[in-house]
Amino acid sequence: MQTVTSTEASSENAAVSARADAFVADLQEWLRIPSISADPGHHDDVARSAAWLAERLRAEGWPQVEVWDDTDALPAVFASWPAADPAAPTVLVYGHHDVQPADLADGWSFAPFEPEVVGEELRGRGASDDKGHLAMVRLGVAAHLAATGADGPAVHLKLLAEGEEESGSAHLGSLLAAHRDALACDAIVVTDTGMVDRDAPTVCTGMRGMVDTEIVFRGASVDLHSGQFGGAVPNPATELARLVAALHDDQGRVQVPGFYDDVRLPADAERAAWAALPFDEPAWLAKSAAGAQATAGEAGWSTYERLWARPTAEVNGLHGGYGGPGHKTIVPHSATAKLTFRLVADQDPARVLDGIRAFVDAHTPPGITAELIAGGPGVPPLICDVDSTLVTTIREAMGAALGAEVLPAREGGSGPEALLSTELAAPLAFLGVMLPSDRIHAPDERAVLPLLLAGAEATAHLWRLLGERGV
Amino acid sequence: MQTVTSTEASSENAAVSARADAFVADLQEWLRIPSISADPGHHDDVARSAAWLAERLRAEGWPQVEVWDDTDALPAVFASWPAADPAAPTVLVYGHHDVQPADLADGWSFAPFEPEVVGEELRGRGASDDKGHLAMVRLGVAAHLAATGADGPAVHLKLLAEGEEESGSAHLGSLLAAHRDALACDAIVVTDTGMVDRDAPTVCTGMRGMVDTEIVFRGASVDLHSGQFGGAVPNPATELARLVAALHDDQGRVQVPGFYDDVRLPADAERAAWAALPFDEPAWLAKSAAGAQATAGEAGWSTYERLWARPTAEVNGLHGGYGGPGHKTIVPHSATAKLTFRLVADQDPARVLDGIRAFVDAHTPPGITAELIAGGPGVPPLICDVDSTLVTTIREAMGAALGAEVLPAREGGSGPEALLSTELAAPLAFLGVMLPSDRIHAPDERAVLPLLLAGAEATAHLWRLLGERGV
Ligand SMILES: [Zn+2]
Ligand SMILES: [Zn+2]
Repeated sequence: MQTVTSTEASSENAAVSARADAFVADLQEWLRIPSISADPGHHDDVARSAAWLAERLRAEGWPQVEVWDDTDALPAVFASWPAADPAAPTVLVYGHHDVQPADLADGWSFAPFEPEVVGEELRGRGASDDKGHLAMVRLGVAAHLAATGADGPAVHLKLLAEGEEESGSAHLGSLLAAHRDALACDAIVVTDTGMVDRDAPTVCTGMRGMVDTEIVFRGASVDLHSGQFGGAVPNPATELARLVAALHDDQGRVQVPGFYDDVRLPADAERAAWAALPFDEPAWLAKSAAGAQATAGEAGWSTYERLWARPTAEVNGLHGGYGGPGHKTIVPHSATAKLTFRLVADQDPARVLDGIRAFVDAHTPPGITAELIAGGPGVPPLICDVDSTLVTTIREAMGAALGAEVLPAREGGSGPEALLSTELAAPLAFLGVMLPSDRIHAPDERAVLPLLLAGAEATAHLWRLLGERGV
Repeated sequence: MQTVTSTEASSENAAVSARADAFVADLQEWLRIPSISADPGHHDDVARSAAWLAERLRAEGWPQVEVWDDTDALPAVFASWPAADPAAPTVLVYGHHDVQPADLADGWSFAPFEPEVVGEELRGRGASDDKGHLAMVRLGVAAHLAATGADGPAVHLKLLAEGEEESGSAHLGSLLAAHRDALACDAIVVTDTGMVDRDAPTVCTGMRGMVDTEIVFRGASVDLHSGQFGGAVPNPATELARLVAALHDDQGRVQVPGFYDDVRLPADAERAAWAALPFDEPAWLAKSAAGAQATAGEAGWSTYERLWARPTAEVNGLHGGYGGPGHKTIVPHSATAKLTFRLVADQDPARVLDGIRAFVDAHTPPGITAELIAGGPGVPPLICDVDSTLVTTIREAMGAALGAEVLPAREGGSGPEALLSTELAAPLAFLGVMLPSDRIHAPDERAVLPLLLAGAEATAHLWRLLGERGV
């Protein structure tokens, strides 16, 4: 394996440092646009965000920049910058410029769309996920060009900034299909990712898939008076609670038939790398910044293994009957559970959904009618080849920028990455510096600025190294 | 036992019949006042309803009529009409003039406060519960006086129409304490009650008590991303579902410690009477008018026994996490269950609550903080002496009016009756003709007019018979 020489590293580092102040000011401007894709009231802002990004990319020298609004997808931005050497590999960077909703009432301690620098942190919705990371990539390209002194990058660079990742990427398939030629590439690098800890730099090598479902239990056609009927007819809320309670055994194993049949266990080397990561439970709970009081889960697996390599069944919402102040003496006519199942390699969403259907059938008692609503075809799990040049070079580039060894890790979340890799028929890897303490998808999102700068330096190394090595 | 002679019965019957049309028109006028005590926006209407009733009672000849608004209770109406014979017993009739909320959006097929006669039915909120029954009592007094030709009733009659029964009678204790002397009586007859079936006339001889509670399970301080945390921290919604599932064993027995310790089993004669009542499960489910699909409950007991003589634990509401459209991949930070426990003689609400507290403690897993909120001191169960003159005379009077044997039964609901009996230190019995198909507390409430008229005749008999026999 080649290594990054200190001369090259420091010129890329210097190029990033010289641009740091401008980088922060520029990112703050972008963060002031509340590009919330889940809220139709903010779709104009998603379009403004796309226009803003396209304008910046042009100003930064990208020869081809387009806003794509020719499908049902919210506006996406595409840019490409060919390498001088036609034989260089083509790398597509994927990220998204839309953000999660952010309502002050959810518990923000600062205005989500008035970004402020406090110490090392930039605070605001999108500071980390994912505008901060797309800005990091732009800074990395500038640093790469400054360090090499060339007119263009060492690889053919392409950039795709999606506009509706945070609302589920419902139209990403159409977008990819409509622009398959423009997006053709030899490798995909996803920025929408992070590390285990600031002191334990890692590169993500897999994400969980997902099946989402809603289960509705119905009893009577209206709420019944619990004095007149309570104890003599089935209660849909009680019965649904029993179904939910039956989802796991006392070892935390999911009881959906066949759920574990296709699960691929992580390789010994990977498990050993995860075991080498620092894990201090109180610190992990504290860093979650959410006050979780304890770990829990499937017996026989560590917290990282539970999150990265084990499938789960999670109740996202449970609602039935009266929820207002005081009490109302009813037998509710219905109750609903929203459940998401996280999948790992090599589980198949369609097969898991069949199992869920059988589970619901088996747990629907007499007097209750069950409805199972699947929220779409599901997201397949994604797993990277940890031994590929792409992944090992990313580890090397990040290691040079961060001054520390970068271990493989995974993410427990689910994203459109599996679709990208499949549709564009290219290997995919991750490079991002989000931290658990960034509070993405939660109130008080923030990014650690020195990490975004190091991430920019890492991408600058990466383009140069991949130009030399191929992918 | 004396029996009602046919001459007397028919003169009371004739007196009721002669007043039937006026009765319906008068009741319709009252039902147009939406006296919803649970809604502060309708408290003016509760006051209007009280004033309307007081005005009518005065017009009907009651010598003493008062609107009581001197406590925190919503306006109640009190009236008294002494018997000619000072030695006659004093009977207090209890009912309420407030009504349940009625929102068209809940599924009404007619306007709740624009009462209409359709065939034998009077349709509108309060037509049965309880304005219809208080009107029935007023008609019964008029018929009693017409049949006997006397200036006053055969017993000292008192009437109390409460103004906030449907919102929990929170201030009934203060009301009774403030007016203890005025309310002094030898017996209490409650109108807010019904029968098992039109073809199976019954008199209520007991009601269940109640303890209401809210259990809150809290995990993290905010919702967590289920990709980042799902499967590795406790999920309050899942854990609360497990607690709810553990509330009953597979025989439907409530698992709260000590729950059955004080339960008094019904007497063999009472169980035999209940077994003699017609019970056709499909018909019962259909008559519930609510589309319940099956019976269910504690093993080893009939439906009537489950409702009347067995205590229950019922989930009235279960809420946690996301409930909007689509899905949201969170581990909810909290979940709440609203539970009511129905009690039977001789359970003590305070002792049951202690058991619930122990149950919640035992079912709170690590990483979850539980809060148990009790909704007040609870309602003790009420049981009548089925062999008393009061109860046997009510059965006789109803039997004469309905032309059928009237069997003892109970109600599964809970009301302020136990408080009335205790505070006024008088025996209490029930006389009412509500049917399960009246849809009280539900959309499309209605009353069966021939039954209200028969109920009026029954009360007319009752005053005469109690005047002869005492209570
Ligand atoms: Zn993201
Ligand atoms: Zn009532």
